[in-house]
Amino acid sequence: MTREQLFENIKRKGSFLCVGLDTDLKKVPQFLVEKAAKDEHFDAIFEFNKAIIDATAPYCIAYKPNLAFYEAHGVKGWIAFEKTVKYIREQYPDQFIIADAKRGDIGNTSKLYARTFFEEMDVDAVTVAPYMGEDSVTPFLGYPDKWVILLALTSNKGSGDFQTQPLTPPVREGNGLQAEKPLRLFEHVILRSQEWEKEASPNGEVGGVLMYVVGATQGSAFADIRRLAPDHFLLVPGIGAQGGSLEEVCKYGWNDHCGLIVNSSRAIIYADATERFAAVAAEKAREVQQQMSAILELKSI
Amino acid sequence: MTREQLFENIKRKGSFLCVGLDTDLKKVPQFLVEKAAKDEHFDAIFEFNKAIIDATAPYCIAYKPNLAFYEAHGVKGWIAFEKTVKYIREQYPDQFIIADAKRGDIGNTSKLYARTFFEEMDVDAVTVAPYMGEDSVTPFLGYPDKWVILLALTSNKGSGDFQTQPLTPPVREGNGLQAEKPLRLFEHVILRSQEWEKEASPNGEVGGVLMYVVGATQGSAFADIRRLAPDHFLLVPGIGAQGGSLEEVCKYGWNDHCGLIVNSSRAIIYADATERFAAVAAEKAREVQQQMSAILELKSI
Repeated sequence: MTREQLFENIKRKGSFLCVGLDTDLKKVPQFLVEKAAKDEHFDAIFEFNKAIIDATAPYCIAYKPNLAFYEAHGVKGWIAFEKTVKYIREQYPDQFIIADAKRGDIGNTSKLYARTFFEEMDVDAVTVAPYMGEDSVTPFLGYPDKWVILLALTSNKGSGDFQTQPLTPPVREGNGLQAEKPLRLFEHVILRSQEWEKEASPNGEVGGVLMYVVGATQGSAFADIRRLAPDHFLLVPGIGAQGGSLEEVCKYGWNDHCGLIVNSSRAIIYADATERFAAVAAEKAREVQQQMSAILELKSI
Repeated sequence: MTREQLFENIKRKGSFLCVGLDTDLKKVPQFLVEKAAKDEHFDAIFEFNKAIIDATAPYCIAYKPNLAFYEAHGVKGWIAFEKTVKYIREQYPDQFIIADAKRGDIGNTSKLYARTFFEEMDVDAVTVAPYMGEDSVTPFLGYPDKWVILLALTSNKGSGDFQTQPLTPPVREGNGLQAEKPLRLFEHVILRSQEWEKEASPNGEVGGVLMYVVGATQGSAFADIRRLAPDHFLLVPGIGAQGGSLEEVCKYGWNDHCGLIVNSSRAIIYADATERFAAVAAEKAREVQQQMSAILELKSI
């Protein structure tokens, strides 16, 4: 999916909501688990996802299954993951599919991960961890209309351990990126990775195959990030259960093509544990979508 | 496996070699792939691994399947991975099994990954990426006799992009970790993570459930790491195809219980592509083991 198509979807649906499919059999309605126990052909993870997707698709523009929840069930989990991606692809082709995998390895191995996610599974985007540097990220950047979403400043408490540590300036010599005050690690990640995007992306542009993960809990840090990456989309987890605020994210993170994909997982998909779970999830997604629609209108988008 | 058991295995076998099971169907002997094409019950990945394991087990103390190579085949790949782990566990219970997964996510999700690898799959160790900080790592540290191998200074070119960047001192105030000269990011990772290990490990010790990945290509940086982590085991990829030197690694990285697990993948498992591949892999593994045995003897271990 191109940036333009994504923006079109946001405008058309009045939503920049991503629904996180963090499907945990301990938290899904237990009648699904009981049904699976009696019928080995009933895949509780996939059936839960399918019901959630059918119910929430009108209100969101993206789905983000986190691989951890699928890997936890081994082979069965992978089958459920693949079925889920295929179902979204076929039934809702305008949805942006993010494999939240946080992968990253030496060049050769990252190449293989990129092939897996972009060619075999045909998702639109994969989250990638930056610690191993350029050759761990660039193999994901060479696919037209496929996206790397690089961890920059995450929503969790541990984000302060390394991501916000100041680096000793100058960061690098002779590349025009020297800062007057020390850059923090996440800022350095954002600057360096734009150079990689420029070099590796199919059309040599920036902002067309790269996004950043920025936690909704980071408040005014969004303004710092917008100074360094004015055009990039940001994937924003952490509203709802983790406590981030949609208003604050929009206040500091907005750009002229919205530039935000805001994820909510638990607050939507586990809002109800009865037979009505999908209908309640739809209500919750619709509530967020209506807030988003109002913000988009306010911003004249 | 405890640190003592690992050290015992190293002494008994005269080896600190880990064989990397980076099994790629494009590189394995093609007669295996052809056989799989004719017989759907023949699992080429597992059969390749099984032959390599049977051939090399006398010469190594660990196996390290890199998950990327298995995920590349989706469900089939996961089946091959699980069969491989089970086979090693049953046939060679003294081998240390490392899932090279480079995982790391927010606390709740890392907890799930830890459960998957340590409880469901029963591997001995999993590689973890540090970028997301404390709550992304500690869920892996609470298992007795199970190991986190944290990325510190990797073997690839991109390791210079962030890992070796100097941080502005003082790194933290009031914790006794201030350095006179700026710490580099990987050094900060090594210091901080030892605090986490102390707090989260089942017996409150350091070096009993945590190791570090340090690339064989990093030469004298091993000496810097040994100053910060004298007792920890280091997992060292990058000899063989990536160009690191065993002598140099041992010169700078050695400690009184060896402290090194040196990995070789391609140079051993793809040494031959004929029907003799397993025998040739055994010869290559034996060559490395003999070098290692000589070093152990020289060090009076």
